[in-house]
Amino acid sequence: MNQSLPPLEQLEEKFDSLLRRIEPLDTEAMAQIRKRLDSLTKPQGSLGQLEEIATRLGGIQGTAQPQITRKAVLLMAGDHGVVAEGVSAFPQEVTPQMVYNFLQGGAAINALARQAGAQVICTDVGVAFPLEPADLMRHRVANGTRNMAMGPALTRQEALQALLVGAEVAEDAIQAGNRLLATGDMGIGNTTPSSAIVAVLTGAPLAEVVGRGTGINDGALAKKREVLGRALAVNKPDPGDALDVLTKVGGLEIAAIAGAVLQAAAARTAIVIDGFISTAAAMIAARLSPLSVSYMFPSHGSVEPGHRKALAFLGFEPMLNLNMRLGEGTGAALSFYLLEASLHILNEMATFADAGVSEKEG
Amino acid sequence: MNQSLPPLEQLEEKFDSLLRRIEPLDTEAMAQIRKRLDSLTKPQGSLGQLEEIATRLGGIQGTAQPQITRKAVLLMAGDHGVVAEGVSAFPQEVTPQMVYNFLQGGAAINALARQAGAQVICTDVGVAFPLEPADLMRHRVANGTRNMAMGPALTRQEALQALLVGAEVAEDAIQAGNRLLATGDMGIGNTTPSSAIVAVLTGAPLAEVVGRGTGINDGALAKKREVLGRALAVNKPDPGDALDVLTKVGGLEIAAIAGAVLQAAAARTAIVIDGFISTAAAMIAARLSPLSVSYMFPSHGSVEPGHRKALAFLGFEPMLNLNMRLGEGTGAALSFYLLEASLHILNEMATFADAGVSEKEG
Repeated sequence: MNQSLPPLEQLEEKFDSLLRRIEPLDTEAMAQIRKRLDSLTKPQGSLGQLEEIATRLGGIQGTAQPQITRKAVLLMAGDHGVVAEGVSAFPQEVTPQMVYNFLQGGAAINALARQAGAQVICTDVGVAFPLEPADLMRHRVANGTRNMAMGPALTRQEALQALLVGAEVAEDAIQAGNRLLATGDMGIGNTTPSSAIVAVLTGAPLAEVVGRGTGINDGALAKKREVLGRALAVNKPDPGDALDVLTKVGGLEIAAIAGAVLQAAAARTAIVIDGFISTAAAMIAARLSPLSVSYMFPSHGSVEPGHRKALAFLGFEPMLNLNMRLGEGTGAALSFYLLEASLHILNEMATFADAGVSEKEG
Repeated sequence: MNQSLPPLEQLEEKFDSLLRRIEPLDTEAMAQIRKRLDSLTKPQGSLGQLEEIATRLGGIQGTAQPQITRKAVLLMAGDHGVVAEGVSAFPQEVTPQMVYNFLQGGAAINALARQAGAQVICTDVGVAFPLEPADLMRHRVANGTRNMAMGPALTRQEALQALLVGAEVAEDAIQAGNRLLATGDMGIGNTTPSSAIVAVLTGAPLAEVVGRGTGINDGALAKKREVLGRALAVNKPDPGDALDVLTKVGGLEIAAIAGAVLQAAAARTAIVIDGFISTAAAMIAARLSPLSVSYMFPSHGSVEPGHRKALAFLGFEPMLNLNMRLGEGTGAALSFYLLEASLHILNEMATFADAGVSEKEG
């Protein structure tokens, strides 16, 4: 589908303009929120991360009265040429099958998003199979990536277009009134590009960032390590150039997640980062715009061994520790509740003065 | 108020009868739930703890269709004679002041319980000040504990009575239709007895289990360690006798929490354990009835340094990592959402067969 992509210069210009719209948090709003939190009937700081979250939500929205009204999970789907090497436990057909499952409401993310009162917005950024009706494919950049063990997974045009698709989907969701977003991914084989991104950007040895994904056996795990070694040797991604890393060893859904994160930041909207794949995408976004990190919230700590390193790269500690390894945005959707809890605390608690409670001594 | 307590033998008999009612989980229901979870459209086991929770809820309720309808936080309040030694950052008057705050709905636990759709049931088990109306004091066992640095905090009768008060409160909540409970505590100074319990039962050195509670400074922290050392030297609690530990270095609200946990287990009702104080109480319950542990769910990991050891004693990993240190049941109330999420997964997801999704290869 390359022939239909806009020229490189046009894509670059549009993307640079997105990056330029990202600004720092509103520190005045944050100071006001901190002051209020310290006046509430609890030892100062005793609600830990909930207090940090409320403060940062104010800094993001630019108000001492941050609000979460509508919420959406941006679920990006894409396929990976590298599955030809035998790096996944499931056949590639599962990617489109799961897209239909998302649309019918039967997947884990649908159950958890319903519980959270959030919408699931599923976008085909690069599934390798036809989808019906054809309108489902309107955002598709390519029919999956190329096999990164043999050369670059994407062209620079494809990577930029996928970033911009993610940004467009996020922008539409924000325009529709969503004040809290989450990232999610679907793509058979996508722990392989994510491991490559984490290895390149953190400098960690491959052995420390490669895991079993959906559940491969020892033989396939050894194969996955070997394939990743080849992919890095063949492509030599430049750790100082996140777009080069994304192009050579990334994925279309990963690029779209990174684009959605950047757009959320540009539109002063909080975005919760799901597990391993989403965090790898968030690392790309962080390198492209360090300011964007202030708009991201971590969610859960995945079983994938590379996730801890990816979180550390962003300076994040996961809020949830549930030994999950599913993706789809499931960990992020569960975290919506915690962000909302922070605002219940901010808005509903009595102050020491109101409740006649004595303050700390000495 | 000792004169009004029933005779020791009667209390012992009632308590032994409670312990005898606690039975193992229903393994048949658990096997059925595992089978269903493995048929759902996700890699097997990929939802980690959510799958474990759903399975255990079935084992607890004795059905392959566990349900969570009404929920309640059992918040136990009590005072501690040891505060005379200067171990807390807040004055003791804060305990009754916070009881009124709970009743008026202005505390952190009220905000979080409202968000969860849960009731807060606050019980005065041993506040050291009068409360009005007098009916609020109907469960009070004593006007606070004695100073454990000088001798036993409680008599054996008081400890048993407080355990039975907790059991009664839990029983009433279950009779009222609550299918999910949480523990919560309020009691100025209560990290001191909790640290003593954790040190005695785990054998860990005091230095490793003593923390800053609501936020004491370095001087008070050194004092707290010294006081705890004296309390253990004076009382010599027997690590092999949990009731002896509870009597000598425990607290009335801590005993009531332990009693509530045991009653929840006896009535096949799941109970979520809050932070450091609640976990110390759960350790007492676990020693009195090892079977009761299967009915407990951990919630968050507290900032208090002893909490990790207390959780490990019970074989628990916290689900939430929010650097909280407030108590009241706040971490447990946040966790209700995760237990409910496990049932949304169990009940709402499509199976591989229903959704036409291919299963794992080889």
